[in-house]
Amino acid sequence: MIKKLLIANRGEIALRIIRSAQELQIKTVAVYSTEDVDQLHVKFADESICIGPAQSVESYLNVDNIISAALSTNCDAVAPGYGFLSENASFVKNLEEVGLKFVGPSSEIIEMMGDKIAARNLMIKNGVPVVPGSDGKVESEEEAFEIAERIGYPLLIKASGGGGGKGMRRVFRSEDLKREFNAAKSEAIAAFNNGDMYIEKLIVNPKHVEVQILADKFSNIVALGERDCSIQRKNQKMIEESPCVRLNDDKRKELYETAIRAAKACNYENAGTVEFVLDEENKFYFIEMNTRIQVEHPVTEMVTNIDLIKEQLRITSGLRLSIKQEDVKVEGCAIECRINAENPLNNFMPESGEVEFFYGPGGVNTRFDSYLYSGARVSPYYDSMLGKIIVKDKTRLGAIRKMRRALEEIIIDGVSTNQYLLYAILFDIDFIRGNYSTSFIEEKLDELLNLMEAYR
Amino acid sequence: MIKKLLIANRGEIALRIIRSAQELQIKTVAVYSTEDVDQLHVKFADESICIGPAQSVESYLNVDNIISAALSTNCDAVAPGYGFLSENASFVKNLEEVGLKFVGPSSEIIEMMGDKIAARNLMIKNGVPVVPGSDGKVESEEEAFEIAERIGYPLLIKASGGGGGKGMRRVFRSEDLKREFNAAKSEAIAAFNNGDMYIEKLIVNPKHVEVQILADKFSNIVALGERDCSIQRKNQKMIEESPCVRLNDDKRKELYETAIRAAKACNYENAGTVEFVLDEENKFYFIEMNTRIQVEHPVTEMVTNIDLIKEQLRITSGLRLSIKQEDVKVEGCAIECRINAENPLNNFMPESGEVEFFYGPGGVNTRFDSYLYSGARVSPYYDSMLGKIIVKDKTRLGAIRKMRRALEEIIIDGVSTNQYLLYAILFDIDFIRGNYSTSFIEEKLDELLNLMEAYR
Repeated sequence: MIKKLLIANRGEIALRIIRSAQELQIKTVAVYSTEDVDQLHVKFADESICIGPAQSVESYLNVDNIISAALSTNCDAVAPGYGFLSENASFVKNLEEVGLKFVGPSSEIIEMMGDKIAARNLMIKNGVPVVPGSDGKVESEEEAFEIAERIGYPLLIKASGGGGGKGMRRVFRSEDLKREFNAAKSEAIAAFNNGDMYIEKLIVNPKHVEVQILADKFSNIVALGERDCSIQRKNQKMIEESPCVRLNDDKRKELYETAIRAAKACNYENAGTVEFVLDEENKFYFIEMNTRIQVEHPVTEMVTNIDLIKEQLRITSGLRLSIKQEDVKVEGCAIECRINAENPLNNFMPESGEVEFFYGPGGVNTRFDSYLYSGARVSPYYDSMLGKIIVKDKTRLGAIRKMRRALEEIIIDGVSTNQYLLYAILFDIDFIRGNYSTSFIEEKLDELLNLMEAYR
Repeated sequence: MIKKLLIANRGEIALRIIRSAQELQIKTVAVYSTEDVDQLHVKFADESICIGPAQSVESYLNVDNIISAALSTNCDAVAPGYGFLSENASFVKNLEEVGLKFVGPSSEIIEMMGDKIAARNLMIKNGVPVVPGSDGKVESEEEAFEIAERIGYPLLIKASGGGGGKGMRRVFRSEDLKREFNAAKSEAIAAFNNGDMYIEKLIVNPKHVEVQILADKFSNIVALGERDCSIQRKNQKMIEESPCVRLNDDKRKELYETAIRAAKACNYENAGTVEFVLDEENKFYFIEMNTRIQVEHPVTEMVTNIDLIKEQLRITSGLRLSIKQEDVKVEGCAIECRINAENPLNNFMPESGEVEFFYGPGGVNTRFDSYLYSGARVSPYYDSMLGKIIVKDKTRLGAIRKMRRALEEIIIDGVSTNQYLLYAILFDIDFIRGNYSTSFIEEKLDELLNLMEAYR
């Protein structure tokens, strides 16, 4: 078993990992920037070590400092959480070289899944449905036109090294193709130093549905239910839930089998997520595999009653999965709302400052994963997510009502948050019916902001 | 369904009830004494109404004021929680007379179960095992000696109207019987204005094991697992867990069947608890039936995934139970620790004052039911319990480790608490083995207090 774990992250996910590690009697080492001296992850870990100044690039993204911290505190493993270095293959390669275990897959798997074109080709080879599109890299405008001719409009231009919506363009008419192709390529080069582009058919009004996977070193793989993460704004998820209302049992089984096939295709190990789009006819297509633990993992924990971080730590320690596929039970409905320090009424401008008073929601099947406390500082240097409320109930409507109650309870004084926007969504009739796609926020934002103002 | 509910209580249980009521879309009315203006239950309820000054007898025990409050706010039901008026038959009779529903059984049932001798006789008649003892009231010293002769020492003298250890004496030798019988009787008269006494065999080193019952208006009764509440100090429970390690499946089944028989014997309705002692040979004996929701009910909620307060509200509304006995599943192990404002190192002297800073424990399957927030006042007028940590894990050892972690996390600045005493218990080898009886604290207190000082 891992003896001592360095957590290469901050905020709620650092706390989350520390908690599970402590329960497994693994010693924990927190890292922090000079900005984060007073953060809870520093207080709750057994040890802590400063790794640099406020700017992420000099601290939480500083590979050398993090590896030095792990070695100097005699850690035998490093947990990356999400964001920062969690999907950085060269970081993982460095860890492998100095003999530190990484709580995640090998650098090889991360690298393969990080290359979107390579991942797509691997999936095609293994019979995993992908969105119709180019067979790999699109070399020129001419080739782009040929493909567009074949698959039809609308289509989506994507960057192979991309993420977060960068280097991605939607094209609805042939007269826009040339312009958008070149613009996306320039953006991709600027953002990722990689101008490899590919083209897919644009699935209109899809749901974003993903499957949580766990795989051990002995080729045991389980699928732990799906998450519907379609409530997004600019590719940032806001609300996630499990199960997805649009799937019936047959479709769900097919989805899980496909996700497991995708994971097997790359000899996957540790926790991972296979992301799909689900079109209006309930056909699903692989889009990518995330090789980290995700923000929304607690939704799955609530419905399966499996602690995913503990499973990650067990897998990294070389233990077998503690569950078999036939023992996985998805019970009830779970919803997660992400609370961000931002002002939805001011174009979602991130906020920072001191949270003068904080009260977290409580009660039955109500969990709040957050780094907040009364007096906590919200730093302008990092992600604006303050925490996540996760609730579960026997029925979806029960879970929605519970989430409304939790959102009524939470008090965060000192910074603006999206609390009442989330609250407004929970009263939207299409949300209540589960009748929503990734276009939901875009289509309804004005209406929701008006409602939000009324609720405040 | 109940439309509007008055919660005739304060503190964590008032919050607990408000949360479930809100999720069922029942409007809530909080009551408060002048001392409690700033308490969370007042803030979280839809309405609130002052019912008198700080002293309980003039506010939370003031039947007239509470009924007026319910009528003037157009409530159709009253939830009593535990303590205060929760088992006061005359209060319930008054509610019945003005047409207010009571979230609990009828005044008749409360009265019958409140009379310990009557309850005992009813159980004997219905084949529920009781501790060997007198057939009802013991009229005189002479009769006490006759019974002692028959059942043997040690024995327990109890008051029929008793509770909280008052009017109760243990007798180990015949030469003490006369003195203790008379002393207990005088104490019972002083405390309950009722000198009816009875005698039972004293079960040495028993476990206190109780069964949670739910019963609807249609004679459906279910048993929702047992709780081992043997970690007590002076008859006050400190730690409770479910399931009880000493029971095997056969014994457990027998216990549930017996509990259901006990509930049927009095045509029980609503949530109730059948309390037993379990002797060293694993024989169990009925001791009493509690006709209220209990402090430790979340332990059962965690292992059964049933919201007991919601079930109470449904039953009171005239709905059928939402579960059948065969659908009840007890999964994992849950433990509850009660956090009290008291100083264990100063003879458990209750503490009051302002909680300057508060941080509640979080994480997977970790629940904290409490009225605390940063700046909350702990009143000297009421019970010293600040809240309860409840955790669940697949295994008992997992739950113990999780509870340790939660106790490490919780921060309550400004008043002394028993936090580290609880922590010390969680490291005791007999506790870890489940090898404990109601004598545990008495026998180990000095040792535990020493450990506690080391942990602080």
